Amino acid sequence: MKTKKVAVIGASGYSGEELVRLLLNHPQVELVAVTSRQNAGQTLAHVFPKFASHPKSKTLRFSEPKADLLAKQADVVFLALPHGVAAEYAVPLLDAGCEVIDLSADFRLKSAEIYQDFYAHDHPAPDLLKKAVYGLPEIYREQIKKASLVASPGCYPTSILLPLIPLLRAGLVKPTGIIADSLSGVSGAGRKAEVDYLFCECNESVRPYGVPKHRHLSEIEEQLSLAAGSNVVIQFTPHLIPVNRGILTTLYLEPVEKLTEEKISACYKKAYGNEPFVRLLEGKALPDTKNVVGTNVIEIAWRLDPRTGRLIVMSAEDNLLKGASGQAVQSMNILCGWPETAGLV
Amino acid sequence: MKTKKVAVIGASGYSGEELVRLLLNHPQVELVAVTSRQNAGQTLAHVFPKFASHPKSKTLRFSEPKADLLAKQADVVFLALPHGVAAEYAVPLLDAGCEVIDLSADFRLKSAEIYQDFYAHDHPAPDLLKKAVYGLPEIYREQIKKASLVASPGCYPTSILLPLIPLLRAGLVKPTGIIADSLSGVSGAGRKAEVDYLFCECNESVRPYGVPKHRHLSEIEEQLSLAAGSNVVIQFTPHLIPVNRGILTTLYLEPVEKLTEEKISACYKKAYGNEPFVRLLEGKALPDTKNVVGTNVIEIAWRLDPRTGRLIVMSAEDNLLKGASGQAVQSMNILCGWPETAGLV
Amino acid sequence: MKTKKVAVIGASGYSGEELVRLLLNHPQVELVAVTSRQNAGQTLAHVFPKFASHPKSKTLRFSEPKADLLAKQADVVFLALPHGVAAEYAVPLLDAGCEVIDLSADFRLKSAEIYQDFYAHDHPAPDLLKKAVYGLPEIYREQIKKASLVASPGCYPTSILLPLIPLLRAGLVKPTGIIADSLSGVSGAGRKAEVDYLFCECNESVRPYGVPKHRHLSEIEEQLSLAAGSNVVIQFTPHLIPVNRGILTTLYLEPVEKLTEEKISACYKKAYGNEPFVRLLEGKALPDTKNVVGTNVIEIAWRLDPRTGRLIVMSAEDNLLKGASGQAVQSMNILCGWPETAGLV
Amino acid sequence: MKTKKVAVIGASGYSGEELVRLLLNHPQVELVAVTSRQNAGQTLAHVFPKFASHPKSKTLRFSEPKADLLAKQADVVFLALPHGVAAEYAVPLLDAGCEVIDLSADFRLKSAEIYQDFYAHDHPAPDLLKKAVYGLPEIYREQIKKASLVASPGCYPTSILLPLIPLLRAGLVKPTGIIADSLSGVSGAGRKAEVDYLFCECNESVRPYGVPKHRHLSEIEEQLSLAAGSNVVIQFTPHLIPVNRGILTTLYLEPVEKLTEEKISACYKKAYGNEPFVRLLEGKALPDTKNVVGTNVIEIAWRLDPRTGRLIVMSAEDNLLKGASGQAVQSMNILCGWPETAGLV
Repeated sequence: MKTKKVAVIGASGYSGEELVRLLLNHPQVELVAVTSRQNAGQTLAHVFPKFASHPKSKTLRFSEPKADLLAKQADVVFLALPHGVAAEYAVPLLDAGCEVIDLSADFRLKSAEIYQDFYAHDHPAPDLLKKAVYGLPEIYREQIKKASLVASPGCYPTSILLPLIPLLRAGLVKPTGIIADSLSGVSGAGRKAEVDYLFCECNESVRPYGVPKHRHLSEIEEQLSLAAGSNVVIQFTPHLIPVNRGILTTLYLEPVEKLTEEKISACYKKAYGNEPFVRLLEGKALPDTKNVVGTNVIEIAWRLDPRTGRLIVMSAEDNLLKGASGQAVQSMNILCGWPETAGLV
Repeated sequence: MKTKKVAVIGASGYSGEELVRLLLNHPQVELVAVTSRQNAGQTLAHVFPKFASHPKSKTLRFSEPKADLLAKQADVVFLALPHGVAAEYAVPLLDAGCEVIDLSADFRLKSAEIYQDFYAHDHPAPDLLKKAVYGLPEIYREQIKKASLVASPGCYPTSILLPLIPLLRAGLVKPTGIIADSLSGVSGAGRKAEVDYLFCECNESVRPYGVPKHRHLSEIEEQLSLAAGSNVVIQFTPHLIPVNRGILTTLYLEPVEKLTEEKISACYKKAYGNEPFVRLLEGKALPDTKNVVGTNVIEIAWRLDPRTGRLIVMSAEDNLLKGASGQAVQSMNILCGWPETAGLV
Repeated sequence: MKTKKVAVIGASGYSGEELVRLLLNHPQVELVAVTSRQNAGQTLAHVFPKFASHPKSKTLRFSEPKADLLAKQADVVFLALPHGVAAEYAVPLLDAGCEVIDLSADFRLKSAEIYQDFYAHDHPAPDLLKKAVYGLPEIYREQIKKASLVASPGCYPTSILLPLIPLLRAGLVKPTGIIADSLSGVSGAGRKAEVDYLFCECNESVRPYGVPKHRHLSEIEEQLSLAAGSNVVIQFTPHLIPVNRGILTTLYLEPVEKLTEEKISACYKKAYGNEPFVRLLEGKALPDTKNVVGTNVIEIAWRLDPRTGRLIVMSAEDNLLKGASGQAVQSMNILCGWPETAGLV
Repeated sequence: MKTKKVAVIGASGYSGEELVRLLLNHPQVELVAVTSRQNAGQTLAHVFPKFASHPKSKTLRFSEPKADLLAKQADVVFLALPHGVAAEYAVPLLDAGCEVIDLSADFRLKSAEIYQDFYAHDHPAPDLLKKAVYGLPEIYREQIKKASLVASPGCYPTSILLPLIPLLRAGLVKPTGIIADSLSGVSGAGRKAEVDYLFCECNESVRPYGVPKHRHLSEIEEQLSLAAGSNVVIQFTPHLIPVNRGILTTLYLEPVEKLTEEKISACYKKAYGNEPFVRLLEGKALPDTKNVVGTNVIEIAWRLDPRTGRLIVMSAEDNLLKGASGQAVQSMNILCGWPETAGLV
């Protein structure tokens, strides 16, 4: 199989670091460039001691992020940049013929207006919104195959959309009254030097935040509306918990009719029975982030509550892998025609 | 003020240990007996090295739990025992004239049938159910004053009932469709040598459990029904998170009419404005377990979501203090006519 | 007993916060001022939600640190400031007749030269070095009684000096070849927004740092030399471990003669047998930070190793209490003629 | 390259679980059997949900450990059993022609007497002690190639021996007065349901244990003596710290002559310059367990202290990988003639 040259722009955050780790060990990839303003000039081994055993880590140096230069070096470019900034790089890279996989929020929405509403600035490249494919492989695999710009989903959206979309598409749950209660590890806040994310502020602490209007709601609701065929507005409460990695989401749903465990099970098996990165839990098992951290797998379990009539669906994923870099690599594999699990198991 | 003699039966678990700590330092209390089958004969200092600086710790020894003996020694007896066992001690102690504060589930319900349904055995002393007062001081202060048997609430119930009861009593939220999503520290599972609660099984892990019918639902729903004046059935999902102590509960509620922040605020201030152990958060503050751990305080905050029309209420408490031993001492203070905050600040 | 007015300069760090907590609840203290440049104008309750239940927290506001103003308000002033800055405040406060308890390194050494060597700047007030008393109450109680300037020891020094000084004074161990291996919780690094102390950088991580010449060596060696009557140079390796609070120190010592467990035990009992904040562990017990965190107690245990002939001494303390703010309050109690344990148990 | 059939006896502990993970993904290995008394009959996917995405996990079931059966199924057998028990399986397996890699302490010593002294029971198969090779590949690679019984070293020994042996062999440090101070994650205690290893007993806690005569001293000192050419007795203090995985060891050594950083650096580069799993840290870097956890790498750094004349050497490893299962697989690779890094990167 042919190898491709790959670059990562913005490789010093937690997602960027995970991307680099995956790409260094990917059988089809030659990692040709990693950029970081603050680390420019330093080797991978110096910035990330844990990669120092990889032969490439002593020679590959961080460079300044320059789109024109990177466009000449790489076939595929990952953007692990803040929203707003990512779009600035996507435009010239796409013009130069690169395939672009963006981990920011810049191309996840179809509507520039909703972007403006949730991100508080004009969309920097609204023309590209139509071109971009939402990079949720289990849902948009065919579209990703033909995409040149993949908008890789956020960590919370992945943990909510994968369990919900099959149920909405099959009409098994109402598109109204949906509640998503999520617990996230601290790496979700990024490698930012802020007092709120110091060890002593997070350890032995649990707290909700961003209540009630978190930015990720925009992409979650857009995708759920597409699945339901009607406008979906959900309740979403994120919480910060003292683990490095992992998201646990509990969904509270209302069945449209008298649902049975068998129907739900059949729906999920039809949707995900052959998916390499979706694990449907059977029997008494419930999701546990420790069973998915370090992998690209999302665990899903469900319970019908006879007392309330509600359906409870729970998911667990690694926020930096299935919730970010792992999923982005999965999209690259699809887009490049490689085995979807390459470099991910 | 007069001093009372106090005993703790079952003092070797986490709640029992916290009780001992509080009672050792309580200005009105003389701790005369602590019992534990496994530690019988050993000093407090030996079993709990962290109490070793207290003068009493070198002389007070754990004894076998014998109700008749304890009844002669103590005026007030705390039961920190498993459900089913607690009732066996309560009967003779009450007969002997002791005041009993029970931290188990044995006397929290009014109905022996519901007890049987949730705890899977017949109630061991159904006649006492009428006599017992549910030990939530902010709600039942007057009843506790005259009680001889206080059934101190569980940790999850406290975190759910205190935020909910004023809203239901005032008719501000619907008694239907209530969801309580709770996160608990590992001490909630007790000091049990089980693989599930080993450090390596809990650290870097988050997981739901007991879905969908947790035992605490019985007392939660009974109390909510009393507050609402109608039968209340709620959705409750507990999760285990890697902290020693603390419960964070997020409540999803439906307003009965177009509620305003002001009405909610007024309702809470009326209910809890003068309560020493309820902290109503204002402005942008949200509950954080690290701000209540080690104290008998519960934090409560709320947000109306204009997008969904729902009311989100969040609470934080120390599961071993306001959720167990601190609240039990608060009840003792009321029952004995002492200042309610004695030994608790 | 008379009450004194007390101020804390630099009250927004972890030590400052603990000081405020202790002083708010101290029976002889009226806390009249807390300062913080960044929080000036805000109430205690706003900056530290966990103090919000204290009546004073709603009225006491952080002010700008102005020595002349504070000198008029307070009898006793605590300095919880960086080294170099503390001295600037100490001079005018002492001139104005205040008693000053400094938690920085500024007055811990007798020699301005050694200060310059370890802190890389000239001592800002060398004349005061003679006046200052090293605030280790178990060693310098008599001097503290008469002091107006107390230099409260650092967290590592306390964990090393208290176990070592009695042995050196009694001539039971050699003053050469001493090794101190220390493990510290992350609060020891202060509330600084630096990437190195983010949750994800400290959690699931253990690392040495500051090897081989840590600043605290200067005060440790000066004090050990005084105890030994000869110049002592030690090996000291600090490590950062993922706990909020606590220091565990392991000391490797060489007996001067064939020591026995009895002699060591007798030496420690003579030195600390009546000390309220030193816990000598007997039998099989070894120090554990969880038994001292939240208290002003230091635990000490020892073992003679017949295989190597060495004496191993281990200590555990809360770095923010016995290692900082608790000890500073202990010194205040002595200096003010109050019971030494006031506000500390 | 030829595939071999491999079995793991005792696969339900933490080391066994890691072994299974490595072997499931090893390119030359067919995992044919895993045994566990308590899990017999259950699939890998059931016992370890995190392996459930591996195709084999649904079909491979735990069996009862029966040596004769396993000898027919497997070419190579790993023993992840308690000491004493391992030897019982090694004898028949070797007789049947299997290659055996033992992770217990049973064959690590040359002397049955020392075994008896440290493990408090007679050696169960003393004749095999001569046959066994100590499985530290960087030291005994040539011997492992020809071995049929590999005694894979313990986690503490690996963290101490790899940094020390080159220095002793080169005569750069004295074989006397050596001190090893080690910090271990809780998985080192195994998956045992004991109160001491509960989350709440380990979290926010640090403690020494097993002072002063830990069992691992026997193999450490035997190996050091071989390297030094004289009898070596060391001081060793293990501590338990609240991380899942990782060992950090700090060694205090005395140079034989006026050593220079260059000499030490040259010695380590000669010993380990080409080793794939030893990372010599240069510049200001110090070991950090988070840089090695999840890998088979040991990090080593050193500092000469001009103040004390001592050499401080620090190492970090994953106790379950380089300290147990990873190293065992490394030995298998050597023994089977496969690339040494197969299945380990």
